[in-house]
Parts: sequence; structure tokens; C-alpha cells
Amino acid sequence: MTLPDLADLRGRRIVFSGYHAPRLGEIEAFHDAVLSLDENGVITSVEPKRAPDGNTEDAIRLPEGWLLIPGLVDLHVHAPQYAQLGTALDVPLEDWLQSYTFPLEARFSDLAYAEEVYSALIDDMLALGTTTALHFATVHVPATKRLAEICLEKGQRALIGKVAMDDPTQCPAYYRDASPEAAVDGTRAVIDHIRALPGNDGLVWPVITPRFIPSCTDTCLEGLGQLAAKTGAHIQSHISESDWQHGYVQDRCGCSDAEAFERFGLMRDKAVFAHGTHLSESDMDLMVTRGAGVAHCPLSNAYFAGAVFPLRRALEKGLRVGFGSDISGGPSGSIWETARMGIAAARLRESGTDAATPPEARGTSERRIDFREAFHLATRGGAEALDLPVGAFEPGMRFDAVALDPTCPAGTVRLWPENQGDLRLEKLLYTVSKPNIATVWTDAQARSGSTRA
Amino acid sequence: MTLPDLADLRGRRIVFSGYHAPRLGEIEAFHDAVLSLDENGVITSVEPKRAPDGNTEDAIRLPEGWLLIPGLVDLHVHAPQYAQLGTALDVPLEDWLQSYTFPLEARFSDLAYAEEVYSALIDDMLALGTTTALHFATVHVPATKRLAEICLEKGQRALIGKVAMDDPTQCPAYYRDASPEAAVDGTRAVIDHIRALPGNDGLVWPVITPRFIPSCTDTCLEGLGQLAAKTGAHIQSHISESDWQHGYVQDRCGCSDAEAFERFGLMRDKAVFAHGTHLSESDMDLMVTRGAGVAHCPLSNAYFAGAVFPLRRALEKGLRVGFGSDISGGPSGSIWETARMGIAAARLRESGTDAATPPEARGTSERRIDFREAFHLATRGGAEALDLPVGAFEPGMRFDAVALDPTCPAGTVRLWPENQGDLRLEKLLYTVSKPNIATVWTDAQARSGSTRA
Repeated sequence: MTLPDLADLRGRRIVFSGYHAPRLGEIEAFHDAVLSLDENGVITSVEPKRAPDGNTEDAIRLPEGWLLIPGLVDLHVHAPQYAQLGTALDVPLEDWLQSYTFPLEARFSDLAYAEEVYSALIDDMLALGTTTALHFATVHVPATKRLAEICLEKGQRALIGKVAMDDPTQCPAYYRDASPEAAVDGTRAVIDHIRALPGNDGLVWPVITPRFIPSCTDTCLEGLGQLAAKTGAHIQSHISESDWQHGYVQDRCGCSDAEAFERFGLMRDKAVFAHGTHLSESDMDLMVTRGAGVAHCPLSNAYFAGAVFPLRRALEKGLRVGFGSDISGGPSGSIWETARMGIAAARLRESGTDAATPPEARGTSERRIDFREAFHLATRGGAEALDLPVGAFEPGMRFDAVALDPTCPAGTVRLWPENQGDLRLEKLLYTVSKPNIATVWTDAQARSGSTRA
Repeated sequence: MTLPDLADLRGRRIVFSGYHAPRLGEIEAFHDAVLSLDENGVITSVEPKRAPDGNTEDAIRLPEGWLLIPGLVDLHVHAPQYAQLGTALDVPLEDWLQSYTFPLEARFSDLAYAEEVYSALIDDMLALGTTTALHFATVHVPATKRLAEICLEKGQRALIGKVAMDDPTQCPAYYRDASPEAAVDGTRAVIDHIRALPGNDGLVWPVITPRFIPSCTDTCLEGLGQLAAKTGAHIQSHISESDWQHGYVQDRCGCSDAEAFERFGLMRDKAVFAHGTHLSESDMDLMVTRGAGVAHCPLSNAYFAGAVFPLRRALEKGLRVGFGSDISGGPSGSIWETARMGIAAARLRESGTDAATPPEARGTSERRIDFREAFHLATRGGAEALDLPVGAFEPGMRFDAVALDPTCPAGTVRLWPENQGDLRLEKLLYTVSKPNIATVWTDAQARSGSTRA
């Protein structure tokens, strides 16, 4: 064993303990497993148990007590809104957008301000263990390019879109694309820029990003659909989030959000849509057929959706789902807290909320999820929705990982001898906080935390 | 100004900025206010604004950027369950009790084990800013006495009860009071012990603690009611938590939980009942008349109550309410996280959870709470339910307080210039984590954190 220098694990072998959840509902635990990495940070082998006579002289052993899990995936982030995280959540959506959110996003015409907010956001997300994130930026091309460069510099695996929003009847004059062409051309410019970034070997990706149907003209949406077909880029938007949105799209398009995206050529694989609280059965079936995914944002939904996403129904259909923090529609940028709320919200959806209603009529009786499913959604589930080779410790995947130190006194985990097996992982998922996150890697390179134990 | 030594503020004057919420829904902000303390740590005056010519030469100024709030109050803690916090939340209640909780609590016959768990719990609660807590201990008299001593040593304002549970049809043979007399005598022994603890000047209080009606015989409950009348001690139990419990009490007593407690002499002031998710209007009216309170446990309710407590209705009636973490029925020991879930749960109760139901029929349409009300419930609201002079910065109150350092790099708060006024408090309530909690005082003596900036 060499002394552990954890800064760069490319080309190394690692002896570790920990957990992953490559398939929904199944946890696999590792005890002194051996993981080998190639020179690019791709996992070449995982031996679940170190052979007693196995040669691990040259391997790096993680510090005693540390537990390794795959890096967390956040499928829905409004990066510019980080400055207002945890504020103005007591006002109605319209006021939240017009008085707070649009004026804030408009400020990202100022590159210095963008640099400041985006740098803080990516540092803080990495420190919380979020190794992959799907970001909405703003309408501004320069600031969106800068976000991509910051993610590349800091090492977050990031999918980034210039927001397209051109409908003058819905978007304020001070904050919108000047025309459908401007929206599409700006989107193309960001795609080209990100794809040409020097040193970008699968870390940063461009995303076609219509804000949501109400904020885009048909011409804009058609143009973005054609751009998707031409470039094969990822796609993101909001889908069937609220009663208002659902009704608006029905009135304007005569169909559901999902059907409208289909019509515009935006319902396809590598497309991830946030919320989906109001998706119908047939909407979900369409999304499954097309290979699209949902960013489930349970914290945000409590504030702005007026309902809880029908998660179990979606999972039973085989719909790709991961978690989204929805900074700042949700009050936390932590996928840990998002996953915890995901479990609680699923229980309230199952049980209902008002005891004045008899139990049999109170909830949906759709089966809840537990920590096992939440762990999968927060890791491999999110990665699958993005079609990225991360989120589990398996050969062929890139090494995006988080080392947890449950013993850190500044943290909030207290492990007791009786917390064994899956109970130990359950306790970690419920009680880890930032100080317990010791080191965070993407592509086997440390991006946050300590690099020497 | 003297150099800040924050360890003991008794008899001192303090220049500080911060917030409190002495009345529901109202926030008061302080900017360079001056607070004076007597030799016992009681607040003698609060000058909201330091006079320009005011003499504060002898005052202690909190470090730049720190914000002072009242200490947090946790109205429902199962202290022995700390060892299983965040585990086994995926199993049904009956399994949770019989396979995990009762066997764990039974181990507190071992004083060394009790010492270990209780010491960790009180350290960790104080570090999270919980200055007052209402604790269920176990059936064991020695370990319960020890919990009181630990709280006195460590300085948590604590209300502690030996759990009474004597019904052999409901409680396991290995873990129950041997008889109704044993339950009442043990309770009396703990009351006497706590009241006679040397140096206990209003810090630690005894509590009459029937676990809940199903676990106690009528004889036991009657004896505890007589003990309450005789001693004037606080009372705690669970009330109308779940469909099962609600139905059980109806079958056995022919009335609701609240009416049964009334009959047994246990529905009175200084009585705090956990959950109350299934309380009727008349139950609440009775509780208001008697001056009793509710420990609202929104995290735990998602797991075990099958509903959300009708908080707004309770507040409109004038019922005393504070938050309870319900360690370990809830997965977190943090009142911060409990308050955040309290806001989210109130929104889901208002809006409902299933979008397949039309909006007008989906939720209760009872008005939500926001961060202002949550802040009050987490501080002065909880203190009022316990009839204790803490929870706000007002003359006559004891100085139980938390200093927040929003700039701590290990923490999770990012304040931006645009976060002004109430928005700043809102952001703190949503994003503070343990490293942001700089110093915690009860009776003006530092109990956790740094004592010199």
C-alpha cells in the first residue's frame, strides 16, 4: 500500500468499502473491494472482494471508515438563481417570476456577476457531492459559455443550456430572446462553443433548452426541434409542472405538454423534462417510447407544483427518472435533501394528507419509495436519464465518486454498532451533511474536499 | 468594547444583530441592538437600536456578520432512539416498534450504554442549536435520572420523563413497567430526583410521560393524572397520531385521545402532546381550553401518521404549537430540517398531492405557513407550549440563543447583497447547517461552539 494521495486516481487501483445501486431498488455493498482505473479515469474492473492472496501493494486504500458512493446527479438546476436560493418562497409563482427571478436572471448580461455566482454555485455543488448537473443558464450566450468553462475548470460533469424564451406575450421585454432566430442561433452558438472547448473529454455537454412551452413561440420550438435532430444534443425543459401551465398548453396547442414537445421534435432520447407532476398515463407512455426522462423535484413541487409527481407510476412504466434540486424553486441545492424529500413526498402521496378523509380515500395508495430507490435515483437513475456512463461502480463507467467520512466531528452522522448492512447506508442517506463529504472526484480527479487523509 | 469572550455572558451587555419572532407571523430584526443580562442570565433590557451617544464601552460586540436568534425548541424527542436515527424507516410501524425500537429502548437498563447514547445526543442537539428539548427517556428510572444529570452538565434546557408503559397486552414482557404502581412510583422518583438536583435553577424539569394510551392501563393513567395534580409537573404523551391509534382509543375508551386524557386528569396546561394529526375540531377546542399544546412533527408524520397535522386550523384556534423532531420516528434531529418540512408539509396539505384530482378538490385549501410562522414555532411557539421564559429576546426571558455565522466556509449559507431584510432570515432558515452555528448559549453560558471569535 502506498500512502494515500487522493488527488488523481487515474491509472490507479483503489481498495475501498461503500455502496452503489446500479438497478432500481437493489443495493450492493462493497467491503475492501478493488477498483481499477485506466489513464482516462474509466473503471476497468471491480473485484467485489479482495482476494486473500491478491497483490494490492500498489493500490491506494481509502482511509479507515470512509465509504465510497457514486457521485450524485442533479437533473434540474437554474444556475443563475443560486443567488436567491432559499428566498421569496412565500410569494405566488407569478410574483416569484416577475419580481425576483426574471430580474435576477437578466443581470447575467454582466459577465462579472455571472462569474461570481456560477463559481460559487459549482464549488458548493461539488462540495455537496453533486458530480453531474443539468443546468439551465440564462438567455445570454456569453454568460452561458462562461458557465461551461467554469464547470470544465472546476470539474463538474455538466450539461448546460442557453435558455430559449422569445414569446413577447409571456416574457418581459428586458429579458427575452429578440426573435425565434436569435433563440435558435444563440443555442447553436453555445453548442458549438462547448463542443470545441479544449480539454473537454465528455465532461461538459451542450443542451437545447426551451424554458417551457409558454415562454417560446411555435417558430422557436420548431427551430430548436430541427437543431436537436441535426446536432443530437441533449434537450431540457419544464413539463406539466402546474395547473396553470398544463391549462395554458392545452389552450394554445390543443394537447398536453408531452404531445406538444413531440410535435416540435423535442421529445426524444437524451431529453430530460423537469417536474411532470401533471403528466397523464399516455404522456408517460409517450416519454417511455421516446426514451425521454423526468427530473423529479420534490422540494420545488411542494412550493410551485400543487401536487406530487406520480413517481411510482412512472417507475413502473420504465420511465427514466432522477432527482432535481430545482435551484431555486426548491430551497436547497443538495441532492441529499432532495432525495429525503422525495421519500417523504412519496409517502404523503401514498397516504394522503388530511385525516378528515377516511384512510381508504385519503391517498393514491400508490406504493411509496424507500431509501434504496432514492439512492438509485440520486445516482445511476439520473445518469441513465442523461445517457452518461456514470452513477455506479461498473467497468466502462467513469469514476465520479464521493467519499463519505461518517466520523467527521463537524458532520451530523453518528454510526453505532447496531447500524449494520443496509441500515448503515440508510443512516448515511438521511444524516450526512457537508462536513461528512470528504472527497469528491469526477473522471478520477479530486474536485472538492481533502486529497490526503 | 472589550475583546469578545463569549463563554459566559451573565451580567454583561451585548451589541448584536439578528432576529426573533415573539408573536406568530411577525419577525423583528435587530441591528446593533444592545441586550443586557443579569447575573443569572436573565434579559433585563433590549434596546433595539444603540443610541449614537450610548455608552457601550463595556459591552461585548458579537463578531462582524454573526446573527443572533433565540435558541431552538424541540417538543418531541425519544432520547434513547438516537442510536437508530435515520434507520428502519422503510418498515411498517408495528415492525419498527417490535423489531427495532422496543429492543433498543430495553438496552437502557445498562447505564453505561445510556451514558454513551445520551451524551452524544445532547452534544449533537446543542451543536444544532436546540437549546430546549422535551425528552421521552425509557421505562428505566436510573437511566432517566442520568439523562437529567447529563442535560444539566451539558447545559441543555431539558424536560425529561421516565416512560410509563404497563399494559401487558400491548407492551412486550421484556420492556414494560411491572405494574401500574411501578409506573407511577418510578415517575414520582424521577420527579423528586430532578427537582432536587444541585445547581438546577430552572434548567432541567421532570415530565409525567405515559407513552400513549394504548400502552398504559387505566389504573396507570389515573395514577399519573393524580400525580400531575399533586406535583404540577409537565406532562407529555402521543395523541391521535395514526388511524390505528385513533381507532384503538375509540374502541377501548369510547372517546378520542384528547377526551381520554381529560378523563384521566392529564389534559391541562404544561401538557404537550405529540403529533395530533387526527385531532378533531372539538379535540382541539378542549386542548385550547385546558392550555395544552401540540408537538408538530412533520418529518415523522410523513413516515408514521398517514396524514399531515392541520396546523393552520390549530393556530387559528389559538392552540399552542411548536415543532418536534421526533427522534427517531423522523429521520433528523435538527429543528432546522423539521421546520423546513413543516413549511413543505403545510403546502402539500393546502394543495393536495395528486394532480389527477381537480385543484379545487385536491387539497384542504387551509392556508399554508411560511418561514415567518415556522421561525416562531421553532422558537417562542415551542417555549410557550412549555410555559418557559425563553424563545425571544425580551426582558424577563432567559438568554438561550444561537449565533449564526453565515460566512463559515464549511457551512451551506451563501448570502448575497440582494438578500436583504426578511429575505436574509428566510435564506438562513432554509440553508443553515451545523457549521454555520457558531455558538449556542443557555442561561447566557456557552454550551457549544466557539467562545472566542
